[in-house]
Amino acid sequence: MMTYRKELRFHLNKRRGLVNITEAVTEAIKESGVKEGLILANAMNITASVFINSVEEGLHADFEKWLESLAPELPYEQYQHNTDKEKNADAHLKRSIMGREAVIAITDGKLDFGPWEQLFYYEFDGLRHKRVLVKIIGS
Amino acid sequence: MMTYRKELRFHLNKRRGLVNITEAVTEAIKESGVKEGLILANAMNITASVFINSVEEGLHADFEKWLESLAPELPYEQYQHNTDKEKNADAHLKRSIMGREAVIAITDGKLDFGPWEQLFYYEFDGLRHKRVLVKIIGS
Amino acid sequence: MMTYRKELRFHLNKRRGLVNITEAVTEAIKESGVKEGLILANAMNITASVFINSVEEGLHADFEKWLESLAPELPYEQYQHNTDKEKNADAHLKRSIMGREAVIAITDGKLDFGPWEQLFYYEFDGLRHKRVLVKIIGS
Repeated sequence: MMTYRKELRFHLNKRRGLVNITEAVTEAIKESGVKEGLILANAMNITASVFINSVEEGLHADFEKWLESLAPELPYEQYQHNTDKEKNADAHLKRSIMGREAVIAITDGKLDFGPWEQLFYYEFDGLRHKRVLVKIIGS
Repeated sequence: MMTYRKELRFHLNKRRGLVNITEAVTEAIKESGVKEGLILANAMNITASVFINSVEEGLHADFEKWLESLAPELPYEQYQHNTDKEKNADAHLKRSIMGREAVIAITDGKLDFGPWEQLFYYEFDGLRHKRVLVKIIGS
Repeated sequence: MMTYRKELRFHLNKRRGLVNITEAVTEAIKESGVKEGLILANAMNITASVFINSVEEGLHADFEKWLESLAPELPYEQYQHNTDKEKNADAHLKRSIMGREAVIAITDGKLDFGPWEQLFYYEFDGLRHKRVLVKIIGS
């Protein structure tokens, strides 16, 4: 059994935003040499998500509006977590909806994706350094 | 290390619906010959979910009503994604709540489930061909 | 390839509550002898979650209030699932938001966590015996 580990690094210049990491993760699979197995990609910070959806700007705007309606950033006073210097309780809640991680099959040395599947990093509390962990196991 | 790959196919004759895939996935484990390991089952389309819950019709009706309240299908105009021919933004949002995938332990050649766990495919945008990927790794 | 299986047991004396299981799962990794691989931790009951977030009481109170707003326990009559003796439909819905399972990388024999990541069991229907399954695969 082979394993491989890699970190992806992010520093968005805004509070929230999406980054397509499909190519970076595909590169990690090539580096690993694994042809058949599983890949785990997870946010290492608890105010961000890794999730799978499609590349479509209108849909990404819908996600943003919808998440803000379910877990609004403001007013900060509505959340107990925000009583000290942190003001990111909404980021923890939004990330709970979108999920921490994706587990994807590796087949023939590639991400085994359906036709529209793409892998995204979703930042909910940017303006700081953040990371995604990629772990690959297989043969 | 052994790996096995299988696709399950669906074509529901309605927009939304649940399909119990526990038996189909159990069959895939038998075919794989794997006795100890992990199984990944994920929707290959981004408007459907694979998730685990119980067989209970009242509960399934509750899920339907609840998801529709959190991410309503209508009016289509509320979503930017729906400005072209697609009218399925709500399907993307509903699937985000229910999740893309389930990862399940395989022990003694069987799904290692608690007493009420069953594996379901949840279609949010039917009336077309859809797929679930099953990937098994283990020994 | 090595595999290891362990069950964690819970019996909370209230309907809802959080239990930090990071140490118990770390112990399971030591018992397994696995140095590189993946660990799956999942609720075996369908009214509980395993998820990753931080140790912060204010935030945990925010989760409780937020989940109750999205999937309220009362009135029981709003859910079809509650027509017989079960009164836990809200627990199924809350668990759907927080997720059934976490998949975590094992690196150098340890949980490969970011700085604030901790693993939690979230009980949504306590006052009874419940279980979490830990399955480890790797080398």
